[in-house]
Amino acid sequence: MAAAAAKAAVVLPRPVTFVTGNAKKLEEVKAIIGNSIPFKSLKLDLPELQGEPEDISKEKARLAALQVDGPVLVEDTCLCFNALKGLPGPYIKWFLEKLGHEGLNNLLMAYEDKSAYALCAFSFSRGPGAEPLTFLGKTPGKIVPARGPTDFGWDPVFQPDGYDQTYAEMAKEEKNKISHRYKSLALVKSHFKEAGYVFQTDDGTI
Amino acid sequence: MAAAAAKAAVVLPRPVTFVTGNAKKLEEVKAIIGNSIPFKSLKLDLPELQGEPEDISKEKARLAALQVDGPVLVEDTCLCFNALKGLPGPYIKWFLEKLGHEGLNNLLMAYEDKSAYALCAFSFSRGPGAEPLTFLGKTPGKIVPARGPTDFGWDPVFQPDGYDQTYAEMAKEEKNKISHRYKSLALVKSHFKEAGYVFQTDDGTI
Repeated sequence: MAAAAAKAAVVLPRPVTFVTGNAKKLEEVKAIIGNSIPFKSLKLDLPELQGEPEDISKEKARLAALQVDGPVLVEDTCLCFNALKGLPGPYIKWFLEKLGHEGLNNLLMAYEDKSAYALCAFSFSRGPGAEPLTFLGKTPGKIVPARGPTDFGWDPVFQPDGYDQTYAEMAKEEKNKISHRYKSLALVKSHFKEAGYVFQTDDGTI
Repeated sequence: MAAAAAKAAVVLPRPVTFVTGNAKKLEEVKAIIGNSIPFKSLKLDLPELQGEPEDISKEKARLAALQVDGPVLVEDTCLCFNALKGLPGPYIKWFLEKLGHEGLNNLLMAYEDKSAYALCAFSFSRGPGAEPLTFLGKTPGKIVPARGPTDFGWDPVFQPDGYDQTYAEMAKEEKNKISHRYKSLALVKSHFKEAGYVFQTDDGTI
């Protein structure tokens, strides 16, 4: 075999669309990933799927890439109870909405094991037909009776390992250092750094 | 206003496709609905969606009608715990798979109220773009420690109101008389009877 050819740069035809209806989330993604990758955000009406967290995330990226006809980044969050073999997991939104913080604790009444993990899945697809890459960030902890401000989802009932505070009680900067979301985004960042994507500008030049 | 015109018959271009991978289910549907409606069955790879049971069912019918390009009937089943505000509901499959019968009982450990209902949703769409009609059959009961043969899903932990037996312990004919599935299919049957659909035959005549 001759020496391997130099790795060709992958050219992406347009900025990466981060699928979210929340402008703040885009800012957060940009802040962590930096300016090397051009991002824009877009709210898409995508189906919410059932299944394993990684499968759900990949399928969402596939559908988003088709709709956008270009590179996309999608995000999903799960709260997984070990005694419940990872459930409620991707369905945590419905359980929180219908049962509240006390109801989430009640689900574990039968079990000594209150351990859980917060899971964030980002999936990136280069475009329609490309197999998405998934980046999982996981923060272990336990489910506790709600403590702290109650304005952000299940944060008051999740206490990460090594901390006396719940996610809700922690300072934002402190939480961001150990959060499932941060860990997942750090992997996304590494991938973009290694992959060395090249972006086409609006006038068609690279 | 002049007298209303006679109600025009709705012509369906082909038999109703009942979406299932299970030939026995088609036989059951035919047995209950009778021979007035031509049915065929087809296994489709449809996404499993999150949401409220009726919304999930309607969306599934919409997607199936697009894929089949004709009239479709789809079916979904939920097991809803009243203390959990209807959950696990559409996610019961995952909870059963991961937690088993004992785990389903454990979810209610914190609650005196063990009442539940089995819910079946059939949705019928006349074809792509037509708003699906949903027929909900509901059988009330309670969640009990598993009794009876364990070869059919969550049947061993569901005891319908007015019976000392679980679904799993009941004779099939007895269960079929009161089941959520039967009730839903009875509504489908009534609809077909009232709607008076006319089916086009293969050679294009009506």
